Amino acid sequence: MSSMKTLENLFEETIRDIYYAEKKITKELPKMAKKATSPELKAGFEKHLKETEGHVERLEKIFAMMDKAPRGKTCPAIDGIAEEAKEIIENAADENVLDAGLIAAAQAVEHYEIARYGTLACWAKELGMNDAAKLLEATLKEEKATDMALTRIAESGVNDQALAA
Amino acid sequence: MSSMKTLENLFEETIRDIYYAEKKITKELPKMAKKATSPELKAGFEKHLKETEGHVERLEKIFAMMDKAPRGKTCPAIDGIAEEAKEIIENAADENVLDAGLIAAAQAVEHYEIARYGTLACWAKELGMNDAAKLLEATLKEEKATDMALTRIAESGVNDQALAA
Repeated sequence: MSSMKTLENLFEETIRDIYYAEKKITKELPKMAKKATSPELKAGFEKHLKETEGHVERLEKIFAMMDKAPRGKTCPAIDGIAEEAKEIIENAADENVLDAGLIAAAQAVEHYEIARYGTLACWAKELGMNDAAKLLEATLKEEKATDMALTRIAESGVNDQALAA
Repeated sequence: MSSMKTLENLFEETIRDIYYAEKKITKELPKMAKKATSPELKAGFEKHLKETEGHVERLEKIFAMMDKAPRGKTCPAIDGIAEEAKEIIENAADENVLDAGLIAAAQAVEHYEIARYGTLACWAKELGMNDAAKLLEATLKEEKATDMALTRIAESGVNDQALAA
């Protein structure tokens, strides 16, 4: 990370952080969809993969607005969350426990993104980057909706099945 | 991580994950309070340190309910988030940029905890551990309030000062 003197520097660093995270998520979601046993959860991951590809495109538009080439920077937070998801996939000895663990991992991902997009949308507005703010808020809305959809799936029976296992 | 056959196993693993995270946060918050330049932000971090000590105690009560000794397990997610906070502290070349970055880092921490406590409270209810669910929900409420308080501090001027820097 280079020295950060202004909010604009901090904004750019954080855009690069979430760009790396979104690219990583596009690689992780297909693995999670493949492993999920509940058809509803599988479909949810597949739907969110499509959305995530759109989030990457929005970030590329923001890089263009800043006259910068799209470039990620390693985000140890998302790497850590992905590592925990991998552990669950490898160690869950029951299908329903696996689904419950996958939902938990996905919600940790969503909350990381909700935190980052909330911050970025706020900074974009303060920097007078209103078009960027709109794109960031559109993604934020989708991340929140995904988090709520995951809660609904968890409450609608995946966990009850894990309990009965 | 040992093999997980039941929701109870997954619950215990996740309690150990957040126990490690809370212990880590009690070490990071004093550093963040020391670095923060806005008196309001400094006071917010100090208040949340006291709350976090209470969260550790609640988790120890839950370990006792499970007849287990309190024992954390490395949580790569919180380690990653803490690493990003450390980078900001080291690289912010302006006081107001530092405060804006500290708020962003703290909100990433809060959202990680909101995700985990939301999941754990849901699992505790399904496992019939109602007393544990109440403790987890009490912490969840405090993490959400802290996240909102950080947003208020960010919107109330810290970022405007970063912009003027």
